[in-house]
Formats: sequence, C-alpha cells, structure tokens
Amino acid sequence: MWYLLFEGTLPTLSERAAFQAEIAPLREIPARVKAVLPDIAGAAGNAPPLDLLRTTVSLMGASLGFRPSLDVDATELRRQAMQVCAVVPTLLTALYRLQQGLEIVDPDPSLPYAANYLSMMRGQVPEPEHARAVEQYLMTTVDHGFNASTFTARVITSTGADLAAAVVGAIGALSGPLHGGAPSRALDMLDAIGTIDNADPWLRDAVERGDRLMGFGHRVYKTDDPRSVLLRSVAERLGGDQVEFAKEVEQHAVDVLAELKPGRKLYTNVEFYAGVVMNSCGVPREMFTPTFASSRVIGWCAHILEQAADNRLIRPSAQYVGEAPPVPVPDAG
Amino acid sequence: MWYLLFEGTLPTLSERAAFQAEIAPLREIPARVKAVLPDIAGAAGNAPPLDLLRTTVSLMGASLGFRPSLDVDATELRRQAMQVCAVVPTLLTALYRLQQGLEIVDPDPSLPYAANYLSMMRGQVPEPEHARAVEQYLMTTVDHGFNASTFTARVITSTGADLAAAVVGAIGALSGPLHGGAPSRALDMLDAIGTIDNADPWLRDAVERGDRLMGFGHRVYKTDDPRSVLLRSVAERLGGDQVEFAKEVEQHAVDVLAELKPGRKLYTNVEFYAGVVMNSCGVPREMFTPTFASSRVIGWCAHILEQAADNRLIRPSAQYVGEAPPVPVPDAG
Repeated sequence: MWYLLFEGTLPTLSERAAFQAEIAPLREIPARVKAVLPDIAGAAGNAPPLDLLRTTVSLMGASLGFRPSLDVDATELRRQAMQVCAVVPTLLTALYRLQQGLEIVDPDPSLPYAANYLSMMRGQVPEPEHARAVEQYLMTTVDHGFNASTFTARVITSTGADLAAAVVGAIGALSGPLHGGAPSRALDMLDAIGTIDNADPWLRDAVERGDRLMGFGHRVYKTDDPRSVLLRSVAERLGGDQVEFAKEVEQHAVDVLAELKPGRKLYTNVEFYAGVVMNSCGVPREMFTPTFASSRVIGWCAHILEQAADNRLIRPSAQYVGEAPPVPVPDAG
Repeated sequence: MWYLLFEGTLPTLSERAAFQAEIAPLREIPARVKAVLPDIAGAAGNAPPLDLLRTTVSLMGASLGFRPSLDVDATELRRQAMQVCAVVPTLLTALYRLQQGLEIVDPDPSLPYAANYLSMMRGQVPEPEHARAVEQYLMTTVDHGFNASTFTARVITSTGADLAAAVVGAIGALSGPLHGGAPSRALDMLDAIGTIDNADPWLRDAVERGDRLMGFGHRVYKTDDPRSVLLRSVAERLGGDQVEFAKEVEQHAVDVLAELKPGRKLYTNVEFYAGVVMNSCGVPREMFTPTFASSRVIGWCAHILEQAADNRLIRPSAQYVGEAPPVPVPDAG
C-alpha cells in the first residue's frame, strides 16, 4: 500500500522486498533524538501521545537538517518522507512506553509493519490474527482525499517549507476530535451506553440534546462509509461480546438518526469499528488516534511529494463580511 | 495592536495598562519547558530558530495540558492564546542565545514589547529608535488576511485541535521561503549584487534565468504593497549606506521586472525593506523570519479564537484529474 502511494503502482514481489529492505533501518529513531525522548516525555507529563509525536517529529526534522522542500530535489524529499513514515510507529510506541514507565522496545526488522508496531507497543509479538486486523485497519486509513490533515500538509508544503513542518502540522490537525480524535470517543460511547436496553433511550437523549454521536456521519459520505463496512467485517472475524454489542448499538444509532435527523443521511463512519477492532487487538485507547497517525503519515507524505513536484502557493483570499469600521474623525488641529 | 486584534477595538489607556499587566508574567517560559531547552537546542544542532520554536511551542502545549479547542470554553482558549503570544519572543531569543552558546536573558516586565524582545536577543537594552523601528515592523506584519500560515491555523483549529497544534502548524507554514522565509534572502540578494553598477546586469540575469527576485511580487497586491511603503519610510528614518543602496536596487528591480515581465505587476513586497530595517536595528539574519513569527503569532491566535467561536470543519474535496486506473482482470480460476 505504501509503495502504491509513493510509486503509483503496486510493486512486484522483488520491488516489495527491496522497498521493505529500504524501510527496515529507517525504523530506528536517530540517536540524538532518542537521547532526549525521556526529557521530552517528562516535560510533557501525561499529554496525549500525539502531542508528543508532534513535538518529536518536529525535533527530528530540525536535528536531521531537513531543508525547505523548495530547496531540495525530489530524490532527497522522497528519502526524508521514507524516513519519517518509517520512524513514526517507533516514536509513538517509544513515547507511549516512556509515559507508562516502561522500557522502550526497539523495532524488529524481521517483523512486518503491523506486527512490529504491536510488538514495540506491547513488548511481545502479537497473535497473527491481531497483526492482520491492525494491518487491515492501517491500509483502510492510509489516505482519504483532501481530509483536513492532508490538506494542512499540502498548504504548508505549498510555502516551500520542509517536510517535517508539513507532517507536524498534519499531526496537529489529526489530533482534533472532528478529524482523527474520535475513535476512542466512539468506544467511550459504547461504555456509557453499557447495555443494549439502554441504547435507544441513551442515543435519543444525546441526539435531542444536540450532541454529535461519535462514529457517525461524514462530510463526504452520505451513505455507508466503505471503510466502516470493511472494518465491521474485520471486527466480526475477531468476534467477541463487544463486537456483537457494537453491531446492535450501530443499528439503533442509524435508526435513531434517521428518525430524528431525517434527510441528513448519517451513517457509521470509519471510526466506529476502528475503536472496536483496535480494542480487540489489545491497543490501548490512548493509542487509537496515534495508530491512525502511523498509517495516515504515509498518505500525508505522498501528498507532500505530489504538492512539491508541481507547486503553487495555497493562499485563499478572505472576504470581510463584518460591519464597516467607523469613519475616522479628522484631527481638529 | 494586539488588544485590537483580540478585542475588536483599540484600548483606552487604562485598558491598555491592564492588558500589559496581564501579559508581563506570561512572558516567562514555563519551568518544565525551560529546563529542557538546552537538550532540545543540543539535539537540533544548528537548525533554524523557527524549527526550534515549532518544537518548543508544541512541547509547551503538551506540558501545560492544552486540551482540544472543541472541549475548552472561550475564556480558557483566550488565556492560552495570550500565553502563547507572550512567550514566543522569549522562546525565540532563548533558543537563539543557546545556539550561540550565550546565557539566556530573561524577559524584563518593565520594558515594552519590542524593547524587551531586542533586549532578550542581544543582552542589552536597545536604542529607542531601534526599538521603535522594530515595533513598527511588528505592527505592520501582525496580520494579513488568509495568508498560508493563518489559513493553516484555521484549518487545524477547524478540526477541534488544541491551540498549540494550530500555532505549531502555522509556524511550519511561515518557515516556507514562499511565505515568511524570504526577508533574509532579500538581504542576501543585496549582498550578491554588491555595487549599484552591478544591479542592472545582475537583476536581468536573474530574471532571464527564471529566478524569483526575493522581496518582489505578491499573490494579492498587484501594486505597491502598503507595508513596503511604510517600511521604506522607517528605513529612511534609520538611514545609512545600506538603506540608500536598497532604494537604488529597488528602483532597478521594479524597472527590470516591468520590462522583462510586462503585465505581471511585480512590485516591492513587505519583505524587501523588512530585512533592511531589521539589519539596521542589529537583528541577525537568522532571526528575521523568527521576528516575523513573533508578531504574526498574534494574528494567528486572533484567527484561531474567531474560528473556534463559530466553527465548521475546513475539509475540501479533491477532484481526480489523472488517468483512469486499468480495469482489473477477473481471476481466471
């Protein structure tokens, strides 16, 4: 998937092997950055891991001397993109473990992407079905048109800024609850509902109160989000009580939204089953959005490379729609 | 100016005094962040100060527990904005001095904004005419519609992300040479030209080669940039050989552009005299764009507060204009 986004075609088996060999050493955190991770994690206290990722990707770009994209050639920019995409899962899991008071687990070059990610996070090689489920989640979420974080990366790149500047801005956009910050909230909603008898009244109360139901509705999709359909099937394969409960709540929520918000076409989005899948695979809630970031960074970087290759400054003009300012009174003198 | 952007009106004298009293203690770098500045500066080596600002504002937001803008009320968001705007000059000058191997100079609450900034940067209270010139530069550049960095801050805020996420993204956009990264390049051009006899041939060569003349042309202004007119008058007040030379080069450049790029309406932009003014006031070249950031952060934050107060996700849709993908061949099996 990563190769497809960077190169434009799916790889042959030998191209894939060469690509994997290129990535493996880039998973390591550069030594000067790794040395200060404990200080940064300490200063940040219990901040969300994405805030720490934002900080450390910014530091890594500075430390590695990433120059403005305007001033580097396509080969160098691609090299930087490969390195940032490869190191993000390592940074995220290292920062998470530091916050938990655990030893950092270094990347294992023999493991595929998702298995390595879960292994670095949890300190043990995951069950194959969990690695596969997370891999499917990651592939599902790697890119999605001009979503707000990708668009942010393009706007920043359009100024000729360095690749880290664009990725750091995109991480910030992704951290917003209206964009990437919702999968743990969808699971929190399932917890709050608690039992299926409570689903209908809880959901009605929430919608009538004007609350947004986390995991439902999308700016672009006005029908089933195809990613939620896929992730529902992944969740069904994993099975378990929570998956069954989620499916029942989903049906109630879609019905309640259709009744109380007729014509709005609010369906399950990618984040509803994302939380269920990640929870089933042992990913802790605070790592849901970071896991999303670890795939989406590949999409951001593909967009950055495309923007830099044929650039034009993205600079909208604003139209003033407020009241006219008072007319200045000329000096009497 | 800052009060005007945050409150919508110019302050009375007593309102101004209260505002200044609110700002003074916020200039201090929070202790947990200040403690790790040497580590961060060390890991970043000789990276541009703006890359370090990006990193440390990100860390400060995490360390102070800035929560998503979607989840905090207007009073709290304004308080965060005040703190970030107040601390940016302190962070910038502290990081600059650490990179130079110098002791950090703490903010002086008795000094006005620009005098305090120059004092923290250079370790001595500036001449009043230099403080005034830099103050005029800062007021000139504090806001400018939907420029790329301000727009970035709005896109990030529109996801409900925290204020630091939006400011950090904006810093990244500002660092691009096509946006805020040009004032030192305009001065570099003056150095490269060297003598006035060389101006015409040098400028012709550059334009004929297809190079962009740094300090000329603007996406919005197709006439004299009013900010460059003001800054030219500030430069003339400061006087000196470089100012005279800059004025002569400006005239040659406008003439050469009118002749070789007829109809393009390329005039001097804010960055041409910005570099001359800052250089005359003893601001080192690597601090030109950071000085721009120290005023523009106030504009960004005013936009962030406005966006958060009446929010809608900024999420453009993309239109695919490439070739159609090949039609998949069905499995023969």
